[in-house]
Amino acid sequence: MIKKIVLASRNRKKLEELQALLAGLGVEVAAVSAFPGSPEVEETGKTFAENAALKSEAIARFTGLPALADDSGLLVEALNGAPGVYSARFAGENATDADNNRLLLEKLRGQENRRAKFASLIAFSIPGKETVLFAGETSGVIIGAPRGENGFGYDPLFLSDDLGKTFAEAGAAEKNAISHRGRALQKFLAYCKSYPDFA
Amino acid sequence: MIKKIVLASRNRKKLEELQALLAGLGVEVAAVSAFPGSPEVEETGKTFAENAALKSEAIARFTGLPALADDSGLLVEALNGAPGVYSARFAGENATDADNNRLLLEKLRGQENRRAKFASLIAFSIPGKETVLFAGETSGVIIGAPRGENGFGYDPLFLSDDLGKTFAEAGAAEKNAISHRGRALQKFLAYCKSYPDFA
Repeated sequence: MIKKIVLASRNRKKLEELQALLAGLGVEVAAVSAFPGSPEVEETGKTFAENAALKSEAIARFTGLPALADDSGLLVEALNGAPGVYSARFAGENATDADNNRLLLEKLRGQENRRAKFASLIAFSIPGKETVLFAGETSGVIIGAPRGENGFGYDPLFLSDDLGKTFAEAGAAEKNAISHRGRALQKFLAYCKSYPDFA
Repeated sequence: MIKKIVLASRNRKKLEELQALLAGLGVEVAAVSAFPGSPEVEETGKTFAENAALKSEAIARFTGLPALADDSGLLVEALNGAPGVYSARFAGENATDADNNRLLLEKLRGQENRRAKFASLIAFSIPGKETVLFAGETSGVIIGAPRGENGFGYDPLFLSDDLGKTFAEAGAAEKNAISHRGRALQKFLAYCKSYPDFA
């Protein structure tokens, strides 16, 4: 049985979401920052799946513990799926959320089709075993100016079809119930129930 | 124990590859075409992962049997990851391989950066259980004119880093050993070994 899972993320907001979603699992959930010297994993993959697996595998190898990683991003129809895997560095390597949001609004100026999806790939690696992945998506539109203070990333611009408000206007529980990351993690949790002794 | 797996694909060439790769699994492998009335699944997802899972889940539900699906495509650096999930319909809904290859060459005319990756997501669904996914990638460059008669899709334009020839010049076994689909399936096979009673 699994007693402890390491979350292979250094993004505080993402860690908070993952921890809230995994609270019901009944295992200890630690952040990778609790393991001194753990590697910074470069996201060299071209897909969410590759990037998530790169991270969970590196951290499972380093810690010797089961590791869970998320790679996620925004896919905008009018931009042919951009920024996609480059969502966090859309406006450059050290771009802030505000920089990325600004650039997105610029690129969509005058654009009628504002449809977009958030996608998340959750990778789960147990040392010495194969990595398994779980996917989640959620739909919405990109509005013309940021709204709300919660969440992170593109949340203030993403008007959720399911919620009728932006992810930054939604409470954490409300967002997690229908978000891309929430949906991917619900699949992970169902998997843990289907295979109770998968560890 | 799993005795039979349904392959959720109607692409003859892809089925051949999957069957060759799964030959060692020791289970009966059937194509979805053997199940009259099985649904044609629309690939409405924005990611390989979503599309693969849509297919494997629909076919597992319809047949009541474990189902395996692949969604895959070509991601070209100079085209910001295009054609990606649209690889099979790059030149339109009813595009042939030749149409797609021609369009790709057109878009890359005069382009110095010809780097590209093939990516595959394998989804595996057991009725009533969670879908798990396995990812594979393989790197190469897009050459200026097709070479070779084997394979399918963009294979004649994809000069593999690993093989030093195009996928269409390679033999089936040679390609499958290092291809995106082969790598994803190797992960699936390792997973089956890790969890012998996962069914």
